[in-house]
Amino acid sequence: MKVGVLGTGSVERRIASKLVELGHGVTMGSRSADNEALREWVEGVGQGASGGTFADAAAAGELVFNCTAGEASLAALEAAGAANLAGKVLVDVSNPLDFSGGMPPTLSICNDDSLGERIQAAFPEAKVVKTLNTVNNQVMTEPGRLPGAHNVFVCGEDEGAKETVTELLVEFGWPRESAIDLGGISAARATEMYLPLWLRLMGALGTADFNVQVRVP
Amino acid sequence: MKVGVLGTGSVERRIASKLVELGHGVTMGSRSADNEALREWVEGVGQGASGGTFADAAAAGELVFNCTAGEASLAALEAAGAANLAGKVLVDVSNPLDFSGGMPPTLSICNDDSLGERIQAAFPEAKVVKTLNTVNNQVMTEPGRLPGAHNVFVCGEDEGAKETVTELLVEFGWPRESAIDLGGISAARATEMYLPLWLRLMGALGTADFNVQVRVP
Repeated sequence: MKVGVLGTGSVERRIASKLVELGHGVTMGSRSADNEALREWVEGVGQGASGGTFADAAAAGELVFNCTAGEASLAALEAAGAANLAGKVLVDVSNPLDFSGGMPPTLSICNDDSLGERIQAAFPEAKVVKTLNTVNNQVMTEPGRLPGAHNVFVCGEDEGAKETVTELLVEFGWPRESAIDLGGISAARATEMYLPLWLRLMGALGTADFNVQVRVP
Repeated sequence: MKVGVLGTGSVERRIASKLVELGHGVTMGSRSADNEALREWVEGVGQGASGGTFADAAAAGELVFNCTAGEASLAALEAAGAANLAGKVLVDVSNPLDFSGGMPPTLSICNDDSLGERIQAAFPEAKVVKTLNTVNNQVMTEPGRLPGAHNVFVCGEDEGAKETVTELLVEFGWPRESAIDLGGISAARATEMYLPLWLRLMGALGTADFNVQVRVP
């Protein structure tokens, strides 16, 4: 599958590299096509990897990942272009973290709204699926690094899009039963509002390399 | 230990009954001392159980549990009286859920503040420890009903108070290593903001009888 990945940070590079490793063709997009991190990634990965603007990446992908920092996500998607996202699955991995007040960050949107919902509202023709925003990038693409079972959450309005994304999660190494469908895109409030607990756990555990397993009787 | 339990709902009754079962003397408090649920609980449990007003319960307890609904907590504690809470461990199990907009509820306080912090600020001489607010009342007092390991979170400003509460959690059946200390009372933001995910999980799983285990490599 052809995949567009928006952004050039550590999350984007890890997801993009994993996708190429799995045989997908990836176009990574940045604000400017001559971004250094972008050029390095494309040259480092070689076959299957290409780079361009946000619009190039969105146009090239049949499915598009938004991994940009939450505060930059809507602008990046605007630059990607509504027409380039229309009808496509848009995987939203972002979190609306606001570091302006210092650590720990607060959320710039929460409680009765979420970044996932804002993105779906701004791009109504895209099929937004929120997932993977509750784990760090190592766990995202290598869930087996943690012992035993643990879970990933999926939400969005389009059932087919959620199925496509779940299949991609299985390719990443997540057992199918580890993906919990939380419902429509408004459930993005729930997974984004988990971030403050995630951050406190990171502090208490001394590592970002963790996840949670949901236990039922 | 003599324990005051504020409120007469299902959470309060379950915690109070467990405390009596463990050999503690419990005074359950209500807005009015002739509350029917209160009288029924006292008569049903018998030895070790007594009832009264919020102030009676707080005065009688060496340690006080606030299990009242979040929207009523500050008023209940006001009725309990700052003098009756001064110097005591105040275990805060409440969540600031706001059902006025329908389901799912939002939080009446979140992001840059929390109910746990408001309570600590309103009663500076009490040693507030937030815990158990991330599980339903069955799991609170019978953690072994879920298979395998799973976690409970503790936060507050006073180290000795957190130790006292952790020992009580161990009495309830929580293995000591299952209690994760998230730091000061501001971490109440994190555990209270987990509630939206808890509620979505309850919907997805079809049960409130669950909890999470934190997995590290």
